[in-house]
Amino acid sequence: MDQNELKKMAGRKAAEFVHDDMILGLGTGSTVRYMVEAVAERVKNESLHITGVATSRRTRDQAEKLGIHMKSVDEVPYIDVTIDGADEIDKNFQGIKGGGAAHTMEKIVATASNQNIWIVDESKIVDQLGRFPLPTEVIPYGSTKVFQRLADEGLHPRFRLNEDGTRVTTHSKNYVIDLHMKQIQHPHLLQDWLIRQVGIVEQGLFLDLVNKVVVGTQDGPKVLDAHR
Amino acid sequence: MDQNELKKMAGRKAAEFVHDDMILGLGTGSTVRYMVEAVAERVKNESLHITGVATSRRTRDQAEKLGIHMKSVDEVPYIDVTIDGADEIDKNFQGIKGGGAAHTMEKIVATASNQNIWIVDESKIVDQLGRFPLPTEVIPYGSTKVFQRLADEGLHPRFRLNEDGTRVTTHSKNYVIDLHMKQIQHPHLLQDWLIRQVGIVEQGLFLDLVNKVVVGTQDGPKVLDAHR
Repeated sequence: MDQNELKKMAGRKAAEFVHDDMILGLGTGSTVRYMVEAVAERVKNESLHITGVATSRRTRDQAEKLGIHMKSVDEVPYIDVTIDGADEIDKNFQGIKGGGAAHTMEKIVATASNQNIWIVDESKIVDQLGRFPLPTEVIPYGSTKVFQRLADEGLHPRFRLNEDGTRVTTHSKNYVIDLHMKQIQHPHLLQDWLIRQVGIVEQGLFLDLVNKVVVGTQDGPKVLDAHR
Repeated sequence: MDQNELKKMAGRKAAEFVHDDMILGLGTGSTVRYMVEAVAERVKNESLHITGVATSRRTRDQAEKLGIHMKSVDEVPYIDVTIDGADEIDKNFQGIKGGGAAHTMEKIVATASNQNIWIVDESKIVDQLGRFPLPTEVIPYGSTKVFQRLADEGLHPRFRLNEDGTRVTTHSKNYVIDLHMKQIQHPHLLQDWLIRQVGIVEQGLFLDLVNKVVVGTQDGPKVLDAHR
């Protein structure tokens, strides 16, 4: 099976964890698209009452089109479960997100959720985080100073660029600086350092947030549960 | 002397710390206006070469009009000294800024500066921080969840409102939530908690940043130096 089929497998399997009357966070990305499709089928076939909360306009548009009732995170009292993709997950369920430059919105929804389920194909499971460049969202004013500080710290920063060479901007009109570190040995220490840097709005480490991972593998979908 | 005269006294006194060839950060606020006037006079009278870096459009416009050569923080390699106002300073030189909703830009410039001088009238010097509401800048999406978390923590949050009842927005189109705590007993612990909250872009505690405070008092200007 190719990567797309593994993504589809994980997305469809995760839709099984949706129940009637749930407030459901919907992430962003290619694996999430399959999950949203599968959730919409269940909503239709089983007449489920689901309220969706999206982490991006893309997902909101897709979900609304498929007939899922959507609200903003500010219109719901809480979120039962959020299902989202990831760019990397290690064996301790610590992960990196932000390839889509939506990690701030995704983290806002994740922290408002009672449970977080990640859906990935098996290529995303790693022994150590960091092969995937770690995204940071940075306020444009003063961003060269933040960049310099990241470089001085040895974190190999690069501004994320569009194809035409201009800088990628997020939903909040901020820049994305990716950290090409190759390996992250102490994600909690790195997070502690990054959140202290004035000008960094958010960074893509998602630590101690994930309760369940659904992996699409050549042997079928695997469900991994986090234990404290 | 009234408060305005004390502000003017502090602002004019601080202009004495400006030297030729300096890259000078210029803060925001009523006391800063007097300082910028006094710096512009010195630039003119003494033919000083000064490059100014502003923390707000207001200050940039004023400084340019008065003939100070201005650049953005991203166009200078470093800032020698930034002179800014404050809303509160305690005896340990820890402070609160953000009454003007510009504290994120101010903190970006402050952290890029080799030295920070604060200019205040004597009413801003306090035994304990917190009588002045502590501002936080919050991403609109999910801000009700952040508000709830701040309330649950006992921090007495209130969205800052315009006169017409709409929410104040910052330069980056974020909301301001002020924390009406009355007293802040452990500012470092509070800062550690606040910077961990997803959705809070920046908060108004300026800790371990100020090197010198110039105070306008009824007995004349006083210059206080921080010692480690």
